[in-house]
Amino acid sequence: MISVGIVGGTGYTGAELLRVLAAHPGARVQAVTSRTEAGKSLAGLYPHLSCLGELEFVAPDSSELKQCECVFFAAPNGTAMHQVPELIEAGVKVIDLAADFRIKDATVWEHWYKQEHACPQLLASAIYGLPEVHREKIRKARLIANPGCYPTAVILAVLPLLEQGLCGDGPLIADAKSGVSGAGRGARVPTLFSEAGENFKAYNVRAHRHWPEITQELQGIREAPVSLTFTPHLVPMVRGIFATVYASEVDRSADLDALYRQRYSEEPFVEVLQGDALPETKHVRGSNSCRISVQRPNDGEVVVVLSVIDNLVKGAAGQAVQNMNLMFGLDETSGLMQAGLFP
Amino acid sequence: MISVGIVGGTGYTGAELLRVLAAHPGARVQAVTSRTEAGKSLAGLYPHLSCLGELEFVAPDSSELKQCECVFFAAPNGTAMHQVPELIEAGVKVIDLAADFRIKDATVWEHWYKQEHACPQLLASAIYGLPEVHREKIRKARLIANPGCYPTAVILAVLPLLEQGLCGDGPLIADAKSGVSGAGRGARVPTLFSEAGENFKAYNVRAHRHWPEITQELQGIREAPVSLTFTPHLVPMVRGIFATVYASEVDRSADLDALYRQRYSEEPFVEVLQGDALPETKHVRGSNSCRISVQRPNDGEVVVVLSVIDNLVKGAAGQAVQNMNLMFGLDETSGLMQAGLFP
Amino acid sequence: MISVGIVGGTGYTGAELLRVLAAHPGARVQAVTSRTEAGKSLAGLYPHLSCLGELEFVAPDSSELKQCECVFFAAPNGTAMHQVPELIEAGVKVIDLAADFRIKDATVWEHWYKQEHACPQLLASAIYGLPEVHREKIRKARLIANPGCYPTAVILAVLPLLEQGLCGDGPLIADAKSGVSGAGRGARVPTLFSEAGENFKAYNVRAHRHWPEITQELQGIREAPVSLTFTPHLVPMVRGIFATVYASEVDRSADLDALYRQRYSEEPFVEVLQGDALPETKHVRGSNSCRISVQRPNDGEVVVVLSVIDNLVKGAAGQAVQNMNLMFGLDETSGLMQAGLFP
Amino acid sequence: MISVGIVGGTGYTGAELLRVLAAHPGARVQAVTSRTEAGKSLAGLYPHLSCLGELEFVAPDSSELKQCECVFFAAPNGTAMHQVPELIEAGVKVIDLAADFRIKDATVWEHWYKQEHACPQLLASAIYGLPEVHREKIRKARLIANPGCYPTAVILAVLPLLEQGLCGDGPLIADAKSGVSGAGRGARVPTLFSEAGENFKAYNVRAHRHWPEITQELQGIREAPVSLTFTPHLVPMVRGIFATVYASEVDRSADLDALYRQRYSEEPFVEVLQGDALPETKHVRGSNSCRISVQRPNDGEVVVVLSVIDNLVKGAAGQAVQNMNLMFGLDETSGLMQAGLFP
Repeated sequence: MISVGIVGGTGYTGAELLRVLAAHPGARVQAVTSRTEAGKSLAGLYPHLSCLGELEFVAPDSSELKQCECVFFAAPNGTAMHQVPELIEAGVKVIDLAADFRIKDATVWEHWYKQEHACPQLLASAIYGLPEVHREKIRKARLIANPGCYPTAVILAVLPLLEQGLCGDGPLIADAKSGVSGAGRGARVPTLFSEAGENFKAYNVRAHRHWPEITQELQGIREAPVSLTFTPHLVPMVRGIFATVYASEVDRSADLDALYRQRYSEEPFVEVLQGDALPETKHVRGSNSCRISVQRPNDGEVVVVLSVIDNLVKGAAGQAVQNMNLMFGLDETSGLMQAGLFP
Repeated sequence: MISVGIVGGTGYTGAELLRVLAAHPGARVQAVTSRTEAGKSLAGLYPHLSCLGELEFVAPDSSELKQCECVFFAAPNGTAMHQVPELIEAGVKVIDLAADFRIKDATVWEHWYKQEHACPQLLASAIYGLPEVHREKIRKARLIANPGCYPTAVILAVLPLLEQGLCGDGPLIADAKSGVSGAGRGARVPTLFSEAGENFKAYNVRAHRHWPEITQELQGIREAPVSLTFTPHLVPMVRGIFATVYASEVDRSADLDALYRQRYSEEPFVEVLQGDALPETKHVRGSNSCRISVQRPNDGEVVVVLSVIDNLVKGAAGQAVQNMNLMFGLDETSGLMQAGLFP
Repeated sequence: MISVGIVGGTGYTGAELLRVLAAHPGARVQAVTSRTEAGKSLAGLYPHLSCLGELEFVAPDSSELKQCECVFFAAPNGTAMHQVPELIEAGVKVIDLAADFRIKDATVWEHWYKQEHACPQLLASAIYGLPEVHREKIRKARLIANPGCYPTAVILAVLPLLEQGLCGDGPLIADAKSGVSGAGRGARVPTLFSEAGENFKAYNVRAHRHWPEITQELQGIREAPVSLTFTPHLVPMVRGIFATVYASEVDRSADLDALYRQRYSEEPFVEVLQGDALPETKHVRGSNSCRISVQRPNDGEVVVVLSVIDNLVKGAAGQAVQNMNLMFGLDETSGLMQAGLFP
Repeated sequence: MISVGIVGGTGYTGAELLRVLAAHPGARVQAVTSRTEAGKSLAGLYPHLSCLGELEFVAPDSSELKQCECVFFAAPNGTAMHQVPELIEAGVKVIDLAADFRIKDATVWEHWYKQEHACPQLLASAIYGLPEVHREKIRKARLIANPGCYPTAVILAVLPLLEQGLCGDGPLIADAKSGVSGAGRGARVPTLFSEAGENFKAYNVRAHRHWPEITQELQGIREAPVSLTFTPHLVPMVRGIFATVYASEVDRSADLDALYRQRYSEEPFVEVLQGDALPETKHVRGSNSCRISVQRPNDGEVVVVLSVIDNLVKGAAGQAVQNMNLMFGLDETSGLMQAGLFP
């Protein structure tokens, strides 16, 4: 039984971690920290977690974290980097669901996140926790940078094309759409029901922090530069990410359906749809699945890949637990096979 | 391992049964029938159930049903009554999620359901499957009439008051609100997204089929007549029932908080909220819980009880599995302890 | 052309006033104040109002207000009472859309609004701006207390019953449901899309500030005490109020359909539905209408009245303009006959 | 006063035409036909249109249509082409909101719409009713092919680029998202609230009928071939279209902000946003506006144009009335300046 600590259990990502771990046969939540809710019961803030029993939030500096075998950071960007070195030294394995360890180049990170990095020396050994790409490294890692939600959906969409060198040098376009829970539980006017409901908009079109993250990973996979245009949009739904990725100059002789099917045939959490079947976010709501379809509209020159995940599961907490399973030698799917919730 | 059959697996109730049973350690789905989808794969229609593997729909007259130990009917009203006698005779235990066996008086049933009852002789032995009221009878039953969604929420709201004789003879008012999935998966204009979205309305105000069902059960509990007014409303959300029940002339000396807490202290799926905490449908979405709060507004003469369930779980499929657990001597909570999905 | 000032133009009520006035042939918005947005363009904050041209917010202490003929307060409770005496003295007619002048008894007001009243001397002459009840007084008023959204829906629902003395002394129950815009534009966690979406809940069940307001008015109409139970709920939609009001002991010999039809036959903004037709909030979205249906379920002892309004129009800005029309001798419907937006 | 007839008044487009025309000072609805609702009152089906008074639906073959000066077809594809020749001959001006006259090449039309064209001889003289492109021809037209909703949003997004020859020969990508009302009022499972709510999906990715329509118009504007990839998606909201259009190889020396501002400076219904301001569908809900923003993300090689309309207004009924205004020499904005509905 892995003893687990969670830093920042009051946001949606933290709550989702707790939900996933509640059903996990091989892990037990030992400590959940919260700056604002310390001393209060978890089920008071999140009644859907009453199945977790009498668990209470503890203060963030709790020494209990060091006694855990695995600590998840579900805290804002710039939090984990201050606590991770001490935990790693104490032999704790760490999975950061925020962005502190996702960008390999500290200068790039500091440019995008507008702050100095507190432990750049750990960036080299931190592993980007996308099992479909880095599975073997994850097994041996002590520190995981859990991927962003958009990057997960976009990278899985084009991974087979880039690995096979099937994309040209032209622009790769990722038109991505997210449910509102991706914006977190902070109270802001744009995510009020009256503003975000019955509305669709784009945001951060000129520059979004997931752009350098996706670019870094795609270039690693392609082993060559990638010219990515990434446009995030906000959908009036709570959960789900939908990525529509456009690649041009893809070799017409390639059997893309077969390529995708084969690439992901052993992957427990990636489903490749056949023929003209298309993914929908609701089909993966509450589950750790990514569903993907490859199409060539009007038999034209552009290939369109459509991919869906639940931003809080495969895009955050579920993937984090998948990484934990790998790091601790458990079955990779342990605790993650629940059916989604439909309708 | 109980072998289970499901009649009518294409509606939302059937799909939800499959979702709940997929996580059940002591039951295995053997056969799922569908008039329209026979021969097709379940995961094709319901991709969120791909965890169930290669299961296919079979035709409704399938002899496989008789080889099951437990058959659920998730079919329209008036379906089960034609097949149940044969199954019962073959030793199969039956749980009907529709209304065929809920009303004890065949004449009343025929009035409300506008058709002749096909097996009135079974009505006497059919047990109304609300475990909080009829647990011991359910354990021994061969045929369960699984309660309607509204009745479940309303009866649990007032059960302690009626058992203790705390209500006067004045009218009991149940103002109930349901998510749109309660209307089923049939394609009709009023439940289109463009009609039901951003809208709130009442329906069937003059007469709704759940009125005689609730009245019958409340009178049985009170052992005296009950004058019920029941108003159903449609909420622009997918899942959830919220019942606001008003009782007047309730003895002011009674400690209602304590009464409710005590009455439900041993119930695994009823949570009584304390003080001014109030239930929300989203707190039980996807779970088998019923959450209840008792209030006396402005310290006045009217007591208000607020109760929430997920109409597809505690209001249908979850409760049906709870009944199955009781009928087969399993732990009552088996397969039903998953946390709900929030947000 | 009436010159109009608006105090607090950045909230939803202020924005809706601007929308309604933009289509008004006899009024022109002269000044819109905002503490936070002074100097900024209106269309920048509210692009849907770009038809209003180059209007800019001005600071709240603007002397321009005194030069207006009519000033609307769309500011938080406790704002208007500090500015109204000076405006009244300057000959400006005032319509307060907040609660400062709704409660006749200053002590009661102070109890519910938790602050001292700044000008109790004006309470006696302030008119409760529900034209269907106080039309003649409104015509002559200098100060209007514009009714709350819930009170408008509830009072119109039972007005004919109370006027005719058809209700007994038993409890009157108003189960009311509101869209999320009723909570305003302030950023708070409970009204975030991810919290309020796909959710239904009650709030302020023990005590809500609209309870003394409704009670005061109903007692004035009945000329006798009224025992009201009022339960507000939050609906996952942006606009709309639905009130389900239950009255018992209503004389069975009364022809309620005829009574309601007759009472409201001359009212331009109240529509009485016939037979079993029921109102829906979406049918009045964006319009100043109130739609009402009277029903006696199962021909029982309880009468149910269902009433719908748009909380921002007939429940706030539209009714305020209706009052302005009356105060300035214009056609009561001027600027208010736009069709609603459906779907 | 133009006398207007509407064929097919029961769908959302027909209802929206009625709403827009109700506020039009220079037109009066004379006849509204409906196959299914003939003889019934309009306000019965659409209570929000009760302001239109006692209007009733008439049968589709009504001779009243010929006595109108302008007839709108808001009927399914393939309806207008059977009635238009007779009306044109009778001197009636016709605006078809369906697709019968949008495609110039009858063979292409028959391929995409799977039926024989009933009056190919009228295709040459039918004018594509996008005033921003074909204003002068519209003024003189007898028959207008009112543009599809997606084409309106996409064409307006790239019109300035194509007119100035700023796009290269590379693929133009239009990732478009629509509210559910675009699917019409027909009862089908995929547009049920429980299916489309809390869901995001793409549809008709391989081929959509708006693709040849957009391609035809863009090629006409560019006077050269255009390689378009068009992907439609369904958003869980009722109204609104959002088009995100990607163009590569756009000359870096061009000042796109200035170009767009200038191109649309005289257009009453196109607003070009400045700087990093981005459009949102809710800002145009219920209005005839199109709001557009041009961006170059990360200062890269791809230009992104974002454009929003209300699919039922500028994407259908509003644009149709704009065309009518032009055809009859009225002020182009007549009846179309209502503010949208926000929130």
